[in-house]
Amino acid sequence: MLTTAESDRLRVILVETRNPLNIGAAARAMSNFGFRHLRVVKPYAPAFREARSAVGASSILARAEKFDTVADAIADCSLVVGTSAIRTRHVHHTVRRSEDAARLIRGRMRSSNVALLFGSEKRGLTNDDLSHCHWLVRIPTHEENISMNLGQAVAVCLYELIRNAKPSRAAEKLPASPAGGPLASSAETERITATLLDALHESGFLDLRRVADSEQRIRRLVRRLHLPARDAVIWLGMFRQIVWKLRSGRPSQD
Amino acid sequence: MLTTAESDRLRVILVETRNPLNIGAAARAMSNFGFRHLRVVKPYAPAFREARSAVGASSILARAEKFDTVADAIADCSLVVGTSAIRTRHVHHTVRRSEDAARLIRGRMRSSNVALLFGSEKRGLTNDDLSHCHWLVRIPTHEENISMNLGQAVAVCLYELIRNAKPSRAAEKLPASPAGGPLASSAETERITATLLDALHESGFLDLRRVADSEQRIRRLVRRLHLPARDAVIWLGMFRQIVWKLRSGRPSQD
Repeated sequence: MLTTAESDRLRVILVETRNPLNIGAAARAMSNFGFRHLRVVKPYAPAFREARSAVGASSILARAEKFDTVADAIADCSLVVGTSAIRTRHVHHTVRRSEDAARLIRGRMRSSNVALLFGSEKRGLTNDDLSHCHWLVRIPTHEENISMNLGQAVAVCLYELIRNAKPSRAAEKLPASPAGGPLASSAETERITATLLDALHESGFLDLRRVADSEQRIRRLVRRLHLPARDAVIWLGMFRQIVWKLRSGRPSQD
Repeated sequence: MLTTAESDRLRVILVETRNPLNIGAAARAMSNFGFRHLRVVKPYAPAFREARSAVGASSILARAEKFDTVADAIADCSLVVGTSAIRTRHVHHTVRRSEDAARLIRGRMRSSNVALLFGSEKRGLTNDDLSHCHWLVRIPTHEENISMNLGQAVAVCLYELIRNAKPSRAAEKLPASPAGGPLASSAETERITATLLDALHESGFLDLRRVADSEQRIRRLVRRLHLPARDAVIWLGMFRQIVWKLRSGRPSQD
């Protein structure tokens, strides 16, 4: 069972949702299962307005926060989990079945915030959205119709988090980071990524290896490090100094 | 896991449903989880017509059977389970949490038909409906909002029937690195550390923060990353390029 403090560490994040009924349905499922923090990223504006003004709209909807980017919406989270119906496409991400994912998410919620991302009704999460995710969760739907209704998918994912499971001892003792202690927040990880990207631009690294999604690749690379929180400041400091030096060494600035 | 023969022994029965979207949502969840037999009892007639004629209505909806009484709808079932949000009212029935109910329902589906009844959006199952039920299932919703949306309740109940009771082997074995896959070797980690140290020397970072054991600190910092093996080459390449650029930018070499 989750404590209230643990439940309050989950952020349900709806990305580019178009249908107000689905925003309302997500809020209702959250209310049913004791979660309170709903965030929407670039919602279809009339949908968000309509959902908030609907009869019986919950306090969850009234307090829902709106963000312009996924990066902003996940900034205070140390674990970011995306949802996906697809089994095979994600070469960059581990895909876990919902039953297994819930154990890991509950473990993390003991000490830090977790983001659970749901993509738009039509195309799900984009590759750019996915580059913010540590791993993906998949509800084990049937081959013949793998794609769930958004509101139902939210309900099933949240139910899996609150249902009574007898977790194995091993799962209970999962450390927050491989090195122990809490992980860096997404905001810190993103700052480190941005500074590293600056260094890679300045050094010419990205010019040598021109690929369309190089930023996303670097972001995934940094996320895969699972940086301990206590080390985030020093990594950022190192990269900043390197960038400063690379810039001061420019011929045009000599 | 349920076999197709077992899945085909479940009858999802919606009693006096009023909203066509909910009938459609129930059919969609059934399709997602591999169940095929939908029955409706005394539906609000326009709702049933509208649901069947909706764009994208499934073959499940097209084949849905309509009954005038609960007794007729459950006639071929040997176990009848009602759904209810309420914890205390049912003096005549055992109420089981969904986690426990699923095991019993799956067991019965090995040999005979099972009916799962959902009441109307407004008042749930009536006492008369309940009198047909052997026992009741309750999704463990939060005190503050126990009443679920009908389509979401169907999705959660069906998900509970198909979910793997035992965690998968893959999930039990924690991956070697947090991102999955083997970790970088110590030699690779050391090469990365040495190159990073070069970059930190060149950038002046280590001069600014003079401590006796700075090399060891940096080494521990890199080790705490638990670098995946597949990423080691790219990190080394990035740091090497940065070092090269830092050196080529030196005034003495211009």
